[in-house]
This record gives sequence, structure tokens and C-alpha cells, in this order.
Amino acid sequence: MAGNSFGRIFKLSTFGESHGDAIGGIIDGCPAGIFLDFKAINAEMQRRKPGQSAIVTQRKEEDEVKFLSGIFEGKTTGTPIGFIIENTDQKSKDYSHIKDIYRPSHADYTYDKKYGIRDYRGGGRSSARETACRVVAGAIAKQLLKDIKITAYVSSVGEMELKKNYSELDFSEIEKNPVRCPHAEMASKMEDYIKSIRKEGDTIGGIVTCVIQNVPIGLGEPVFDKLHAELGKAMLSINAVKGFEYGSGFAGTEMKGSEHNDIFEADGSTKTNYSGGIQGGISNGEDIYFKVAFKPVATIMQKQDTIDSKGNKAEAEGKGRHDPCVVPRAVPIVESMAALVLVDFYLLNKISRL
Amino acid sequence: MAGNSFGRIFKLSTFGESHGDAIGGIIDGCPAGIFLDFKAINAEMQRRKPGQSAIVTQRKEEDEVKFLSGIFEGKTTGTPIGFIIENTDQKSKDYSHIKDIYRPSHADYTYDKKYGIRDYRGGGRSSARETACRVVAGAIAKQLLKDIKITAYVSSVGEMELKKNYSELDFSEIEKNPVRCPHAEMASKMEDYIKSIRKEGDTIGGIVTCVIQNVPIGLGEPVFDKLHAELGKAMLSINAVKGFEYGSGFAGTEMKGSEHNDIFEADGSTKTNYSGGIQGGISNGEDIYFKVAFKPVATIMQKQDTIDSKGNKAEAEGKGRHDPCVVPRAVPIVESMAALVLVDFYLLNKISRL
Amino acid sequence: MAGNSFGRIFKLSTFGESHGDAIGGIIDGCPAGIFLDFKAINAEMQRRKPGQSAIVTQRKEEDEVKFLSGIFEGKTTGTPIGFIIENTDQKSKDYSHIKDIYRPSHADYTYDKKYGIRDYRGGGRSSARETACRVVAGAIAKQLLKDIKITAYVSSVGEMELKKNYSELDFSEIEKNPVRCPHAEMASKMEDYIKSIRKEGDTIGGIVTCVIQNVPIGLGEPVFDKLHAELGKAMLSINAVKGFEYGSGFAGTEMKGSEHNDIFEADGSTKTNYSGGIQGGISNGEDIYFKVAFKPVATIMQKQDTIDSKGNKAEAEGKGRHDPCVVPRAVPIVESMAALVLVDFYLLNKISRL
Amino acid sequence: MAGNSFGRIFKLSTFGESHGDAIGGIIDGCPAGIFLDFKAINAEMQRRKPGQSAIVTQRKEEDEVKFLSGIFEGKTTGTPIGFIIENTDQKSKDYSHIKDIYRPSHADYTYDKKYGIRDYRGGGRSSARETACRVVAGAIAKQLLKDIKITAYVSSVGEMELKKNYSELDFSEIEKNPVRCPHAEMASKMEDYIKSIRKEGDTIGGIVTCVIQNVPIGLGEPVFDKLHAELGKAMLSINAVKGFEYGSGFAGTEMKGSEHNDIFEADGSTKTNYSGGIQGGISNGEDIYFKVAFKPVATIMQKQDTIDSKGNKAEAEGKGRHDPCVVPRAVPIVESMAALVLVDFYLLNKISRL
Repeated sequence: MAGNSFGRIFKLSTFGESHGDAIGGIIDGCPAGIFLDFKAINAEMQRRKPGQSAIVTQRKEEDEVKFLSGIFEGKTTGTPIGFIIENTDQKSKDYSHIKDIYRPSHADYTYDKKYGIRDYRGGGRSSARETACRVVAGAIAKQLLKDIKITAYVSSVGEMELKKNYSELDFSEIEKNPVRCPHAEMASKMEDYIKSIRKEGDTIGGIVTCVIQNVPIGLGEPVFDKLHAELGKAMLSINAVKGFEYGSGFAGTEMKGSEHNDIFEADGSTKTNYSGGIQGGISNGEDIYFKVAFKPVATIMQKQDTIDSKGNKAEAEGKGRHDPCVVPRAVPIVESMAALVLVDFYLLNKISRL
Repeated sequence: MAGNSFGRIFKLSTFGESHGDAIGGIIDGCPAGIFLDFKAINAEMQRRKPGQSAIVTQRKEEDEVKFLSGIFEGKTTGTPIGFIIENTDQKSKDYSHIKDIYRPSHADYTYDKKYGIRDYRGGGRSSARETACRVVAGAIAKQLLKDIKITAYVSSVGEMELKKNYSELDFSEIEKNPVRCPHAEMASKMEDYIKSIRKEGDTIGGIVTCVIQNVPIGLGEPVFDKLHAELGKAMLSINAVKGFEYGSGFAGTEMKGSEHNDIFEADGSTKTNYSGGIQGGISNGEDIYFKVAFKPVATIMQKQDTIDSKGNKAEAEGKGRHDPCVVPRAVPIVESMAALVLVDFYLLNKISRL
Repeated sequence: MAGNSFGRIFKLSTFGESHGDAIGGIIDGCPAGIFLDFKAINAEMQRRKPGQSAIVTQRKEEDEVKFLSGIFEGKTTGTPIGFIIENTDQKSKDYSHIKDIYRPSHADYTYDKKYGIRDYRGGGRSSARETACRVVAGAIAKQLLKDIKITAYVSSVGEMELKKNYSELDFSEIEKNPVRCPHAEMASKMEDYIKSIRKEGDTIGGIVTCVIQNVPIGLGEPVFDKLHAELGKAMLSINAVKGFEYGSGFAGTEMKGSEHNDIFEADGSTKTNYSGGIQGGISNGEDIYFKVAFKPVATIMQKQDTIDSKGNKAEAEGKGRHDPCVVPRAVPIVESMAALVLVDFYLLNKISRL
Repeated sequence: MAGNSFGRIFKLSTFGESHGDAIGGIIDGCPAGIFLDFKAINAEMQRRKPGQSAIVTQRKEEDEVKFLSGIFEGKTTGTPIGFIIENTDQKSKDYSHIKDIYRPSHADYTYDKKYGIRDYRGGGRSSARETACRVVAGAIAKQLLKDIKITAYVSSVGEMELKKNYSELDFSEIEKNPVRCPHAEMASKMEDYIKSIRKEGDTIGGIVTCVIQNVPIGLGEPVFDKLHAELGKAMLSINAVKGFEYGSGFAGTEMKGSEHNDIFEADGSTKTNYSGGIQGGISNGEDIYFKVAFKPVATIMQKQDTIDSKGNKAEAEGKGRHDPCVVPRAVPIVESMAALVLVDFYLLNKISRL
């Protein structure tokens, strides 16, 4: 009920603040008998971790996952997979300067009002550090999904937008640049732009596009738990996300039915895919694609007026090492959350008929 | 697990196909001792029901709710509120012409593939008729929320967009026109446009904006069940929805942190509200506002190529009485789903501290 | 959360008071494509219904189930099965005599204190009438379970105990007498005893034994949701139940490990079955057997001292038509709840391995 | 769904095998602002831990809990409480002798059949070591419950039964002897008996009685989640439990309604308490009391015939350090599970009325 779990069948529960000894989680409901590829899990962690390139936060966190249970001789056993990730970098820091300060557009104020207490060190539970646990679970989910291919990439940074359909892009370009934009020229511009933003001590928003290919027909539950509704919730649960659209999205509102309807081919595939691979909340076998909007990071390296917990005027100024733009590191998180949604419906769908 | 329930504490479960004897539901977890205003419930049903104006479907459904339990001498008793709504109009119709046809961009194909069987009469479970049950529960939820004011309205139809901030609008205008757009002139244009679209035998999409005022601080759970994540899921679970954004939304991705951050006033309120009333997944007391994108209705009064269940070429053509544009009737549904999200977090928040 | 649902995958939610227009429920998560045998469902309802013999309550309720959704052309569609059972007998009765009275060992006092309101007519939600909905769902669950055979019978009434192991009994005898005891001589004695108890205006307790045969290996989840833990909860959720034991039960506490351990045969079966077909919370393929203790019905046809809602002395006296002993009618309820537990684990087990 | 979580509002999820690096868990939904008494938590762990007396297993486990999150400056923060308990004793042991052996009346066979794989070292997930996590959560739950007093004790070992009502006993005697029986003379006999059983290389069952005092009126949900149904499930989920009864229990089946009914005093209390403090599934303010039946431990120090995973004849013989009788160490586990049930309903009850 307190919202620290995700999934029905394949369920991830997470715990941990950015400045405790460790964060971690439990994956419950992972089927037995799966050989896990730990290198692949680690590779996903590397895509999310701080310090991976010049345009992300320079914090030093190795983000090494330690599995404590649920795996025996390399295979899942059907029992819960417990894991922890130690917080190595942040312990020693001094956070007394923000102890009583409510930073603008952070969760300081709302946590304090809701709980009457907050762990102010580095954002505590509201820190995006929590998403490291999602990437662990997502990496395992991807291994269960095998042929289903989930690919996210940065499609815009600020006003810079990659105006190409995903089908025109070469996904192998994504990991070749630190922005994770599959278009070398645009990526280079975005990178320069992010650097200039950082120089200003400012931050900028952006959009991550995600494409899911080779999806089996039939995933999703038709009423409240529509496939796109769960994808939407999953994405909106990621820190800093402000919007979600799939298929034709907001632009689809301007279309007529006669344009928007996806006409069938004889094999059940469709000539167009405004539906975004989902009809009636259920996957139809076409590619699923969606966009996720991220706001600019709230921590900026500029002085801002604010208040303290007593309502007195105060000043907030970010210190140290923060992301000037969150989307490059958000790419593996978006993929992970998509994988968690997919794997859950994939397992659940095994019992839609006897 | 099969996705026919919504909410944790105040939980709505629905059942029913558009052409069975009745649809209905159970509201479990409604606190005891609430005097219900049945007129108010009926008024909400009238806002959603078919045939209410010239620009919506002309089907004849009274949508009268019959409560079967959980209410005694006008008050809720704390036990489940069971209710049914009889299907009066549709029983006699002939649906043999679509029995084996997969209508484009409907759920016919995906239901058939998922379940191996489908009730083809009028869309069966995938019909938006199911949302009548959501309006019943939403109307009760609104009564529990008392001072919290939830207002939705049509902000665009096709390319016609009401380019005004909600604060500039007079909400009392909403119910004065059949489009439910709180701007007489724009409403009139939209109405004409919808009529012309219907004349073409076509349909058009649109956007519903929703504003929630007088929200207590502290609603929402901070990680996976963020307030906006649940609102997003709730909206995306409504038939024909393609996108959701709150606060600054997609436009916020183009802003810098220094512009986007909402600076506090001494009382904890904020000078701007790009956050959309939610920070870290928790309400901060400012207005919550969001947009919901609806695609054009898939049923058009034009011939379309399609296939039947054996993959043979076929033709589909809508018959009878359908909505040329869904957004006017979607307004109370959006409000109802918002109310269900709010009431659930409102109750849950009572136990965030002892 | 409010406790009106049972099951994870195959989930029954019920609503209804004994004196509303109808009781009913929703079965969500029933797999698609199952031909339902409505005669079999009705037959189970007949086993539970009032008035079926001289030793049960003489109320007149036909307990006819009306299915409203989720079934098409005789088959389940994978969508929720909504159903209602009208309350035909009880509406007109006068309950003003118990309006303010707390009947001893009923739920009048606790409902009033918990909710601040109660539907006093016939026990309201606390009436065992609710179990009719369980029998509907149980009857459907039984049809999914096919070869799994669930058999309950009365093994004691008051101090009269059928001291035979289930393997010595002929289950085809159960339905041949109104007590549902598979031993003609003992059944006859029990029947006479129940009649004499009724003549006294009193009631008597009893025990129902249940045996589940042909159980697949692997049902149950090993930690909190052990198969016997869910069976226990299921049984204890039935009105008037005071105890549950399975396998060796309470008597097993007096045994030594060397006696109690069930030694394996080469095929994995066991020579003895003190484990009651469950080891480590998971079915091992042996027969599951358990006992359920029912207290004497609280409503007696004798005057009892009691209090009213203001703490004043009052008198309570049962009127009309009540069960002198609940166990004969409890037999199909015990079977139904066992079926609901089994079918849920049966479906869930399909995803314990990929 | 996989059964590793307990509770709705105050939810414990556990992970861990007896021979991994650590076991642990997450407590989600603990209200914010509670000062935790860590000494009290540790004291409960000491009551459960191995090696505490001469009549329990002599394994060496310190069972030190390490909290990783959810606590700040000694207080709960409303975020999930993650914790681990390292496995210090067991890592080095050699379990190759049971690798392919199915030990009689253990979970070896059922785990292997269900999952196709099992961690054979020390029982893996089926080991009662998992209950250490329950005691952590139970100890915290007790602190929330404040005035509610939960007391368990050993009431029988084998055929030795303490034939006294709990009201005749001095609970301060419980911790004065290693058996945890609040009657010095009987405790001494039981202790001698357990020692003699151990000398035989055998094991013996027993019964734990639990009494809950100062219970607020109104806890429990009335239909499927009756207070005693959840208590029953909680107890039956503990390793080796075979039965549960509350209030009059199985003996109550032999009583007449006129004897069994609990007559009210003017203040709403009752003259007798056959109901066991629960009526209609809801606490009535009287003492709750129940009995939990434990079978003899399956691991005995005698040779037993068994089979290996291929169906070949084999021999099993316990080695090393096992409990000859589980009930003394089960006492804090029973209390912990009772506390988890109570705290969950306690929190849930805060929203039964507005």
C-alpha cells in the first residue's frame, strides 16, 4: 500500500535512501530455473551509474549488486531474489546546509508535511538512486523476455528534437555517444548543448522514446490494467517524469478516425500503427512505442530563493555533482520499467486460458 | 490480477458487457456512516449517458443505477456497495454482421487472440459502456472528498484548441454547452466542427483538461505509486486515451531548471506551479492539473477494408448510433477516475503517521 | 482491504446483506474457454439452501443464481463473471424487535462498535447468507479442477463422533441422509439428536471433515501462503468456525518424529500420510484431509439476558426458522472454499516455472 | 503472489535461504515517527535464536539484525525498513550427503517437484531460519501496538499438558525456564522429557497457547478476512504447524448454544468468553486466546529409509544440531505473527469510518 512495490506476478519491492548503508530490493515471483547472465545485469547497471561520461553527474558509485538469495548454482530457484547495492560515495558528505531547507521543486516539503520527518541527506528516499534497484530487476526481466526487444533512446533535449520515426534509426548507434541519441550529428549537438547548460549551472529537460519489438499478441488486461496504462504508470513513477504518450499520442487527437484506424493485412498485422501496438489495452503484435517527458533536474548550481521548515526566507544552491540533464541516464531506467511491465503481463497471460 | 478492479482502500471492481442483461460493480472499502446524495450520483450519470445532446451517440440508455447493498437508511455501512445498471437499449440488436469481422483499431482482434473467444455484441467488455460503473463509484468518491473540487473540461477537439490557462476560465460555463468547453465561442465552433465530422461519417479526437483544487498536502505514495503515476494510469485506463501529462508536461522538457523550479512563498505555497501540484509524487497543496489525449473513435460510418477471423478480406462499416467525438462524454469519466485516485490516497494517508 | 474478496488469480468478491434486494459477487480471473455446467452449479446451491430437509432452517429461499456477464454461448470469456441471487423470502419480515438489541455471540455488538451503524435485519452482512455466493464460485472452481475430487462430510455432531478414518468410508453415502454423514447408522443417530436439540429450542456444534483427492504435486506457495495456511484461512472465514487442523492435527503434537515422519515409497508416494498431503506448504500428491470445527449456532429459541445499544438490560429470543445445527449445510460451503483455494494455487502454479 | 509477503498495510516481505550470505526483509507501510526500541527488538531475537538453552539446537547464530533504511535518527520515516541478518554459522557445512536425498516429511521432495531445482543446503528457503525475519517485524509491530499485550507460552509437550486456563497462570514465569511454560513444576517435567527425547535421537511435538489482552474493539474485517481467519493463516504459515483453534475451539463443537453464548454485561463485556474475543470476525474487547499445534520436528538423529531424487532407496540421518522440540523457540514466533496480524488490522481500522 505504501507504494514501494511494482508488479503483480513478477514483483519488485525496493528499499533504501541515498545515504544509508545500502539500498536494495526483493524480486518475488521470478520463475524457477532461469540461468542468470550476471554480466548482462552488470552492463545495465553501468548504463545507469553516475560518472559514466562527461555529461552526467560525477559522483563515484560503483553500483555493484550483491545477490543474497533466490539463486542457486547460477539459476533462479523460484524463491525471492534479495539484493543490496552499497552506498559507497555519499556517506561522508555534509548535508547540514539543507537540513532545514526546502529546495524548490524537490520533495523536501512534501515529505516533511506527509511524514513529519525526512531523511534530508541527499534527498533520502526521493533520490533517483532508488532507480538502481529498478535496473537490477529490469535486467533480470529482460532475460526472461528473451526475444522481446526493448530499446529506449533520447529523442529530444530541450528544444532539440530528433524528428525521425524510430524505424528510420539505427539502434546500434545509441550506445556510441554519451547522450544515447541514435543519430551521431544530433547527438553531438545535444552533447554540446548539455555542456553549455552545465556551464550555466543550469539543467534542461528532455524526452526518451522507447520501442518494444517482437511482442507476443495478448499481453495486457483489458479494463483498468490496460498494457499502456501500466506502461504509463511505470514511466510516470520514474523521478522527474511529467508526461507519457504512446502510439499516435497527443498528435492523434488531431486526427480523424478514417486516418487513424489501422487497417489489417491478411495476417492480422496492420498497414499503419497509430495504435502503438496496443488495441483495447492488449498487445496486437505490432511494435509498441511511446514517449516519456522528463522535466529539468531541480538541483541547479545557482542561488535560488526558498524557505526553511519554519517558513523563514532562505537560499538554496546545489553543490557538487549533479546531472545537468537526466535523459541519458534515464534510458536504461525506462527500458527497465518497460521490461517489468512486460514480464508481469507475460507471466499473467499464461493463465488467461487453461 | 485480471484488471477489473481499481484502488487499494476504496476499491471499485466492475463487471459486464455492453449487451448482457446488466453491467455493475462492487465498491469495497467505502468508510461507514456517509450519507449518500443519490441525486448527485444520478446527475453524474446523466453527464455520461448516451443521447444527452445532438453531438453524442443517440442510443437510448437510462443508465439507472440500482444499489443492492452496503447502504442502510441512506448511509454507507462499511460493507461492500454492490450495484447494477441494466442494459435496456441494446439487447435486441443484430450483431451477426460483425460476428467474424475484426473492426480496425477496435479490440476485436486482440480479445480473440488473447482469450480464444469474444462476446462480439457491441464490443462486449471492451465497450466504453463499462465506464458507467466508474462514474457511479466516482460520484460516491466525490462525496467523500467534500472540499476537494475536481473539474474537467474539453480543451481541444481535433486541431481546435482552447489556448487559455485554466485560471482564466469560468468553470460554470462548462455544463452550458454540449461540448463541455468553458468558453462559449470556442464551444460553439467545436460543436459545429463535430457536427460536420459526423456528417462525413467520420470521427475526431480531442483533449480533456482536468483541474483538482483544494487538495490536502500529503496525498500520494512516493516511489511506484506516485500521485501522478496513479492519475496517469487511471486516465490511460479510459477507452481511447493515448496520452497523459501533468503540470508542465511535454512542454516542460524544453525548459531549464532555473525557469521550471517553483519558488516557495513563506506559507509553503509556490509562486509558479509547473509542478502541477505534485512534488516527489506527493501533493503539495497547489492545484493539480493534467491533460488527457483521446484518439478519434474507431467506429466510423464509412466502409473500411478489414479481415475476418480467418484472414479473409472483409468490409467493416459502422451502423447506427456512435459518438463522432468522445471528449464531451469523457469529461465526467475523467473526473470520476480522478476522484477514485484521490479518495484512495486520501484514505491511505490517514495511516501514514500514527 | 475490507476483506470481501478471496483469491489472488481466481478471485471472488462478494456483496450483499441478508435483507437487501439481492446478494451477489464477481468472479475475476476465471480463465477463458470453459464450458460451464449450470446444472452442476445449481446442484451445489441446492445442497446449501435453506429448507432442504427437516433438520435445517425452514426458510424459503430458492437461491437461484442469475449470471450477468463473463459467459458467452455457455463458455467463460475471460472477463469477470458477475452474478446476483435475489433475496426472496426475507424482505417483509419485522426486525424491529432486534433493532437496538445486541444478541449474545452474534456480530451485532462488534459491527455497531466498528462501523457506528449496522443493518440489523437478519444479521445484515454477518449473516451466513453471504456463503451462497461462495458456493456459486466454488461450483465453478470445481469445474476447472476436473479430476481433483473434493469431498466434505459431517464427522461429528456435539459429542457424537464418527470415529473412522475417511478411507474406511463410502462417500456415496454422504448425500443419502440429511446430516451428510457417510455412515447410515451414525447419521440416523445424529439426525435424531439434532431433532431433540431443536425441540429444546437449542443448538449444537459439530465437525466437518474434508478430503481432497487426486491433487497435483506442487500446489501452494512455501512461506506465508502455504497451502494449508490458505485452507485454514478459508475455513476460518466461514461463519461459526472455531478451529482447523490438517493431517495429524492436534493429535500429531503427541507424536514423536520417528512415528510421525512419512516414509517414501520408490514412486515418491508415502507409506503413511500424517503430513496430510502437504509438506513445506506444498502439496505432495497424497490426499489432503482436514477438519473444521463449528460452534453451536448463536440464535436459540430460548430467552436470553442481553443488553441494548445503550447498555440497558434486555431480552433476546430467536424467532422463526433457524438451523439447530449448522454442519449439514456447511458441507458444500467447506467444499467450495477448498475449491477456491485449490483453483487459485492451481492457476498460480502454472507460472512457478517458465 | 509467490507468498513471501504478509500483511496489507503493515507489510513484511522476506527473502533468504538458511545458507546464503544473509536472510532479510522489507517492512513496508510502517507509519512514520515511531521511536524504535532496538534493545527490545534484540531481546525478541534472543528468544528465538539457536543455542539459547540446553534443550534447543546448539547452532551458533548471533542473529544480529542490521537495519539498512527507513529509520532516521532513531525514528521510522514512513519509508520501507530494509534489514538483513547474516548467516554466520552455516556456510562452511557439508551438505553433499543430502544433495540428492529426499528427507522424510521435509520439503525436499515438494520443492524439487514444484520448482525443478532446490537449494538443498540446510533446507534452503524451507528452513525455519526464515522466521527470524518475522520476529524482527513482529518486534516492531509490538512497539506500535503499545498497550496491547501479546503473550504466548508452551501449554503442552507431547502428552504432557498444562491443564490450566490462562487466567490461572502467572505469565512472568514464562521466561524463567527454557521450555517457556508458565508453571515451574510442569516446565521442569517438560524439560526432562525433551532431554530424554533428544537422548533417543528423536523429536516431539507440542502446543503453544497465545493470549492477547487489551485489544481495542473493532479489529478485523467481517467476511473473508475475519480476525481469527488471519490469525489462523498467520499461525499455520509457521513451519511445523498442524492446527489452530481459538476461543472454545474444537471443544466448542460439543457445546449447546445455550451454554456457549457469551452473555453481555451492561458495559458490553461478556460474562464468559467462549467467543475468544472475536465475534463476527471482529474483536469485541475481550481477551483473544488461541492454540497452535506443532508437529514433531522431521529431522531425527536416527536412520530412516528414504529415496533419492531418482527413486532409488536411500538412508537419511540427521546430523549435528537440531531442535528436539520446537515449541520453546516457537513462542516468540507465535507472538510475532500475532503482532503482525494485529498491527495490520489496527491500522486498517483507522479508516473504517471517516
